[in-house]
Amino acid sequence: MVLPLLTRIDHVGIACRDLDKSIELYRATFGLEVVSLESNEEQGVREAMLAVSTDNPVPGAGFGGFGGYVQLLEPLGPDTPVGKFLARRGEGIHHIGYGVTNITEAMATIGGTGVRLIDQRPRHGSMGASIAFLHPADLGGVLTELVQFASSA
Amino acid sequence: MVLPLLTRIDHVGIACRDLDKSIELYRATFGLEVVSLESNEEQGVREAMLAVSTDNPVPGAGFGGFGGYVQLLEPLGPDTPVGKFLARRGEGIHHIGYGVTNITEAMATIGGTGVRLIDQRPRHGSMGASIAFLHPADLGGVLTELVQFASSA
Repeated sequence: MVLPLLTRIDHVGIACRDLDKSIELYRATFGLEVVSLESNEEQGVREAMLAVSTDNPVPGAGFGGFGGYVQLLEPLGPDTPVGKFLARRGEGIHHIGYGVTNITEAMATIGGTGVRLIDQRPRHGSMGASIAFLHPADLGGVLTELVQFASSA
Repeated sequence: MVLPLLTRIDHVGIACRDLDKSIELYRATFGLEVVSLESNEEQGVREAMLAVSTDNPVPGAGFGGFGGYVQLLEPLGPDTPVGKFLARRGEGIHHIGYGVTNITEAMATIGGTGVRLIDQRPRHGSMGASIAFLHPADLGGVLTELVQFASSA
Protein backbone atom coordinates (compact mmCIF):
# COMPACT_ATOMS: atom_id res chain seq x y z
CA MET A 1 0.00 0.00 0.00
CA VAL A 2 1.38 3.42 -0.98
CA LEU A 3 0.86 5.75 1.98
CA PRO A 4 -0.69 8.08 2.74
CA LEU A 5 -3.69 6.71 0.91
CA LEU A 6 -5.95 9.32 2.51
CA THR A 7 -4.86 12.95 2.74
CA ARG A 8 -7.59 14.51 4.84
CA ILE A 9 -11.19 14.43 5.99
CA ASP A 10 -12.60 16.24 2.97
CA HIS A 11 -16.18 16.58 4.18
CA VAL A 12 -18.95 15.20 6.31
CA GLY A 13 -22.20 14.68 4.42
CA ILE A 14 -25.35 15.57 6.36
CA ALA A 15 -28.85 14.62 5.21
CA CYS A 16 -31.48 17.32 5.69
CA ARG A 17 -35.08 17.91 4.66
CA ASP A 18 -34.79 21.60 3.77
CA LEU A 19 -31.44 22.71 2.36
CA ASP A 20 -32.11 26.44 2.70
CA LYS A 21 -33.08 26.09 6.36
CA SER A 22 -30.01 23.97 7.09
CA ILE A 23 -27.70 26.45 5.34
CA GLU A 24 -29.19 29.21 7.47
CA LEU A 25 -28.74 27.10 10.64
CA TYR A 26 -25.02 26.59 9.95
CA ARG A 27 -24.60 30.26 9.09
CA ALA A 28 -26.39 31.49 12.19
CA THR A 29 -24.79 28.99 14.59
CA PHE A 30 -21.22 28.71 13.31
CA GLY A 31 -20.81 31.49 10.75
CA LEU A 32 -20.21 29.00 7.93
CA GLU A 33 -20.71 30.23 4.37
CA VAL A 34 -21.66 28.34 1.22
CA VAL A 35 -18.79 27.95 -1.24
CA SER A 36 -20.70 25.75 -3.71
CA LEU A 37 -24.38 25.07 -4.35
CA GLU A 38 -25.41 22.58 -7.01
CA SER A 39 -27.82 19.84 -7.97
CA ASN A 40 -26.54 16.37 -8.81
CA GLU A 41 -29.27 14.52 -10.71
CA GLU A 42 -27.23 11.34 -10.87
CA GLN A 43 -27.12 11.18 -7.07
CA GLY A 44 -30.57 12.67 -6.59
CA VAL A 45 -29.50 15.53 -4.34
CA ARG A 46 -29.36 19.28 -4.08
CA GLU A 47 -26.27 20.05 -2.08
CA ALA A 48 -24.27 22.82 -0.50
CA MET A 49 -20.62 22.80 0.47
CA LEU A 50 -19.76 25.01 3.46
CA ALA A 51 -16.11 25.65 4.27
CA VAL A 52 -15.41 24.97 7.95
CA SER A 53 -12.37 27.26 7.98
CA THR A 54 -12.42 30.49 6.03
CA ASP A 55 -8.63 30.62 6.20
CA ASN A 56 -8.09 28.63 3.02
CA PRO A 57 -11.14 26.75 1.83
CA VAL A 58 -9.46 25.28 -1.25
CA PRO A 59 -7.61 22.01 -0.57
CA GLY A 60 -5.82 22.10 -3.92
CA ALA A 61 -4.03 25.29 -2.89
CA GLY A 62 -1.47 23.69 -0.64
CA PHE A 63 -3.84 22.42 2.06
CA GLY A 64 -2.63 25.17 4.42
CA GLY A 65 -5.44 25.94 6.78
CA PHE A 66 -7.91 23.74 4.93
CA GLY A 67 -10.47 22.70 7.50
CA GLY A 68 -12.80 20.50 5.47
CA TYR A 69 -16.36 21.03 4.35
CA VAL A 70 -19.80 20.45 5.77
CA GLN A 71 -21.84 19.03 2.88
CA LEU A 72 -25.58 19.53 3.30
CA LEU A 73 -27.72 17.15 1.24
CA GLU A 74 -31.40 17.53 0.42
CA PRO A 75 -32.94 14.70 -1.61
CA LEU A 76 -34.53 15.47 -4.99
CA GLY A 77 -37.22 12.90 -4.18
CA PRO A 78 -38.22 10.13 -1.74
CA ASP A 79 -36.80 7.33 -3.92
CA THR A 80 -33.25 8.72 -3.94
CA PRO A 81 -30.56 7.33 -1.60
CA VAL A 82 -30.74 10.39 0.67
CA GLY A 83 -34.56 10.36 0.54
CA LYS A 84 -34.58 6.75 1.73
CA PHE A 85 -32.01 7.55 4.42
CA LEU A 86 -34.24 10.33 5.76
CA ALA A 87 -37.29 8.05 5.81
CA ARG A 88 -35.35 5.34 7.65
CA ARG A 89 -33.19 7.32 10.08
CA GLY A 90 -34.22 10.96 9.97
CA GLU A 91 -31.93 13.92 9.57
CA GLY A 92 -28.30 13.48 10.54
CA ILE A 93 -24.82 12.48 9.42
CA HIS A 94 -25.02 10.49 6.19
CA HIS A 95 -21.40 9.78 5.20
CA ILE A 96 -17.76 10.80 5.49
CA GLY A 97 -15.59 11.78 2.54
CA TYR A 98 -11.80 11.43 2.55
CA GLY A 99 -9.43 13.19 0.18
CA VAL A 100 -7.15 11.08 -2.01
CA THR A 101 -4.53 12.17 -4.51
CA ASN A 102 -5.34 9.51 -7.11
CA ILE A 103 -8.82 8.04 -6.90
CA THR A 104 -8.26 5.27 -9.45
CA GLU A 105 -5.24 3.97 -7.52
CA ALA A 106 -7.04 4.36 -4.20
CA MET A 107 -10.05 2.39 -5.46
CA ALA A 108 -7.81 -0.41 -6.68
CA THR A 109 -5.88 -0.54 -3.41
CA ILE A 110 -8.99 -0.54 -1.24
CA GLY A 111 -10.85 -2.99 -3.49
CA GLY A 112 -7.85 -5.30 -3.12
CA THR A 113 -8.34 -5.46 0.65
CA GLY A 114 -11.81 -6.95 0.18
CA VAL A 115 -13.85 -3.83 0.90
CA ARG A 116 -16.55 -3.59 -1.76
CA LEU A 117 -16.72 -0.55 -4.02
CA ILE A 118 -20.22 0.81 -4.64
CA ASP A 119 -18.88 2.65 -7.69
CA GLN A 120 -16.72 0.64 -10.05
CA ARG A 121 -15.39 3.81 -11.64
CA PRO A 122 -15.21 7.42 -10.42
CA ARG A 123 -18.28 9.63 -10.66
CA HIS A 124 -18.78 13.39 -10.68
CA GLY A 125 -19.00 14.95 -7.23
CA SER A 126 -19.21 18.45 -5.80
CA MET A 127 -17.06 21.23 -7.23
CA GLY A 128 -15.75 19.16 -10.11
CA ALA A 129 -14.29 16.43 -7.89
CA SER A 130 -14.07 12.76 -8.86
CA ILE A 131 -15.69 10.57 -6.22
CA ALA A 132 -16.42 6.95 -5.39
CA PHE A 133 -18.35 5.34 -2.55
CA LEU A 134 -17.31 2.30 -0.50
CA HIS A 135 -19.79 -0.16 0.97
CA PRO A 136 -20.79 0.61 4.58
CA ALA A 137 -21.38 -3.07 5.34
CA ASP A 138 -17.63 -3.64 4.94
CA LEU A 139 -16.66 -0.54 6.95
CA GLY A 140 -18.48 -0.87 10.26
CA GLY A 141 -21.69 0.78 9.09
CA VAL A 142 -19.92 3.88 7.76
CA LEU A 143 -20.80 5.00 4.25
CA THR A 144 -17.39 6.18 3.04
CA GLU A 145 -16.54 8.32 0.02
CA LEU A 146 -13.22 8.95 -1.68
CA VAL A 147 -12.72 12.40 -3.18
CA GLN A 148 -10.08 13.51 -5.65
CA PHE A 149 -10.34 17.27 -5.73
CA ALA A 150 -10.41 18.76 -9.22
CA SER A 151 -7.28 20.86 -8.89
CA SER A 152 -5.14 18.00 -7.59
CA ALA A 153 -5.80 15.91 -10.71
CA MET B 1 -19.69 36.58 16.08
CA VAL B 2 -15.89 36.47 15.89
CA LEU B 3 -14.95 34.39 12.83
CA PRO B 4 -13.74 31.88 12.16
CA LEU B 5 -15.50 30.22 15.06
CA LEU B 6 -14.54 26.77 13.77
CA THR B 7 -11.02 26.07 12.50
CA ARG B 8 -11.32 22.56 11.07
CA ILE B 9 -13.09 19.24 11.14
CA ASP B 10 -11.12 17.79 14.02
CA HIS B 11 -12.54 14.28 13.92
CA VAL B 12 -15.44 12.05 13.07
CA GLY B 13 -16.53 9.81 15.93
CA ILE B 14 -17.51 6.28 14.92
CA ALA B 15 -19.32 3.86 17.25
CA CYS B 16 -18.08 0.27 17.07
CA ARG B 17 -18.61 -2.94 19.03
CA ASP B 18 -14.99 -4.14 19.05
CA LEU B 19 -12.33 -1.44 19.11
CA ASP B 20 -9.43 -3.74 18.27
CA LYS B 21 -11.21 -5.15 15.22
CA SER B 22 -12.14 -1.66 14.02
CA ILE B 23 -8.58 -0.41 14.45
CA GLU B 24 -7.37 -3.35 12.38
CA LEU B 25 -10.02 -2.64 9.71
CA TYR B 26 -8.87 0.97 9.32
CA ARG B 27 -5.23 -0.12 9.26
CA ALA B 28 -5.77 -2.84 6.68
CA THR B 29 -8.11 -0.79 4.45
CA PHE B 30 -6.62 2.70 4.60
CA GLY B 31 -3.25 2.33 6.31
CA LEU B 32 -4.33 4.51 9.23
CA GLU B 33 -2.35 4.23 12.47
CA VAL B 34 -3.38 4.85 16.06
CA VAL B 35 -1.90 8.01 17.55
CA SER B 36 -3.78 7.81 20.86
CA LEU B 37 -5.55 5.02 22.72
CA GLU B 38 -7.31 5.73 26.00
CA SER B 39 -10.32 5.03 28.19
CA ASN B 40 -12.61 7.85 29.25
CA GLU B 41 -14.66 6.65 32.23
CA GLU B 42 -16.65 9.88 32.37
CA GLN B 43 -17.90 9.31 28.82
CA GLY B 44 -18.04 5.54 29.14
CA VAL B 45 -15.83 4.75 26.16
CA ARG B 46 -12.58 3.17 25.14
CA GLU B 47 -11.36 5.14 22.19
CA ALA B 48 -8.67 5.34 19.56
CA MET B 49 -7.61 8.37 17.53
CA LEU B 50 -6.28 7.55 14.06
CA ALA B 51 -4.59 10.31 12.05
CA VAL B 52 -6.05 10.48 8.53
CA SER B 53 -2.93 12.12 7.13
CA THR B 54 0.48 11.03 8.33
CA ASP B 55 1.96 14.27 6.98
CA ASN B 56 1.39 16.23 10.17
CA PRO B 57 -1.02 14.60 12.58
CA VAL B 58 -0.73 17.34 15.22
CA PRO B 59 -3.09 20.27 14.63
CA GLY B 60 -1.35 22.47 17.19
CA ALA B 61 1.82 22.40 15.10
CA GLY B 62 0.71 24.94 12.52
CA PHE B 63 -2.13 22.90 10.97
CA GLY B 64 0.01 22.26 7.86
CA GLY B 65 -1.10 19.00 6.38
CA PHE B 66 -3.38 18.18 9.28
CA GLY B 67 -6.08 15.91 7.88
CA GLY B 68 -8.23 15.24 10.92
CA TYR B 69 -8.78 12.11 12.97
CA VAL B 70 -10.98 9.08 12.81
CA GLN B 71 -12.12 8.49 16.40
CA LEU B 72 -13.22 4.92 17.05
CA LEU B 73 -15.45 4.51 20.11
CA GLU B 74 -16.24 1.27 21.93
CA PRO B 75 -18.67 1.57 24.84
CA LEU B 76 -17.56 0.49 28.32
CA GLY B 77 -21.07 -0.88 28.89
CA PRO B 78 -24.62 -0.98 27.47
CA ASP B 79 -25.86 1.91 29.61
CA THR B 80 -23.33 4.40 28.27
CA PRO B 81 -24.24 6.92 25.53
CA VAL B 82 -22.34 4.96 22.88
CA GLY B 83 -23.74 1.66 24.17
CA LYS B 84 -27.27 3.02 23.78
CA PHE B 85 -26.44 4.38 20.34
CA LEU B 86 -25.25 0.92 19.22
CA ALA B 87 -28.41 -0.74 20.56
CA ARG B 88 -30.62 1.81 18.78
CA ARG B 89 -28.82 2.36 15.47
CA GLY B 90 -26.01 -0.16 15.18
CA GLU B 91 -22.40 0.62 14.27
CA GLY B 92 -21.75 3.81 12.34
CA ILE B 93 -20.97 7.50 12.51
CA HIS B 94 -21.80 8.84 15.96
CA HIS B 95 -20.75 12.53 15.92
CA ILE B 96 -18.59 15.20 14.33
CA GLY B 97 -16.00 17.22 16.21
CA TYR B 98 -14.89 20.71 15.10
CA GLY B 99 -11.74 22.46 16.23
CA VAL B 100 -12.06 25.81 17.98
CA THR B 101 -9.35 28.11 19.29
CA ASN B 102 -11.19 29.10 22.48
CA ILE B 103 -13.83 26.67 23.66
CA THR B 104 -15.26 28.90 26.39
CA GLU B 105 -15.87 31.72 23.93
CA ALA B 106 -17.22 29.33 21.31
CA MET B 107 -19.69 27.81 23.80
CA ALA B 108 -20.92 31.27 24.79
CA THR B 109 -21.31 32.36 21.17
CA ILE B 110 -23.15 29.22 20.12
CA GLY B 111 -25.29 29.12 23.26
CA GLY B 112 -26.30 32.70 22.45
CA THR B 113 -27.78 31.59 19.11
CA GLY B 114 -30.25 29.32 20.90
CA VAL B 115 -28.50 26.00 20.25
CA ARG B 116 -28.49 24.05 23.50
CA LEU B 117 -25.19 23.01 25.09
CA ILE B 118 -25.12 19.46 26.48
CA ASP B 119 -22.07 20.41 28.53
CA GLN B 120 -22.29 23.66 30.47
CA ARG B 121 -18.54 23.72 30.91
CA PRO B 122 -15.67 22.05 29.01
CA ARG B 123 -14.83 18.42 29.75
CA HIS B 124 -11.73 16.32 29.18
CA GLY B 125 -11.50 14.76 25.73
CA SER B 126 -8.96 12.75 23.77
CA MET B 127 -5.29 13.68 23.90
CA GLY B 128 -5.73 16.32 26.59
CA ALA B 129 -8.24 18.37 24.61
CA SER B 130 -11.07 20.37 26.16
CA ILE B 131 -14.41 19.41 24.64
CA ALA B 132 -18.11 20.21 24.79
CA PHE B 133 -21.11 18.68 23.06
CA LEU B 134 -24.00 20.54 21.43
CA HIS B 135 -27.55 19.17 21.31
CA PRO B 136 -28.35 17.24 18.11
CA ALA B 137 -32.03 18.22 18.28
CA ASP B 138 -31.00 21.82 17.62
CA LEU B 139 -28.55 20.90 14.85
CA GLY B 140 -30.53 18.81 12.39
CA GLY B 141 -29.92 15.51 14.14
CA VAL B 142 -26.14 15.93 14.22
CA LEU B 143 -24.41 15.35 17.55
CA THR B 144 -21.73 18.05 17.40
CA GLU B 145 -18.62 18.43 19.53
CA LEU B 146 -16.30 21.40 19.97
CA VAL B 147 -12.62 20.60 20.53
CA GLN B 148 -9.91 22.89 21.81
CA PHE B 149 -6.69 21.02 21.22
CA ALA B 150 -4.34 20.99 24.20
CA SER B 151 -1.43 22.77 22.52
CA SER B 152 -3.52 25.63 21.16
CA ALA B 153 -4.64 26.63 24.67
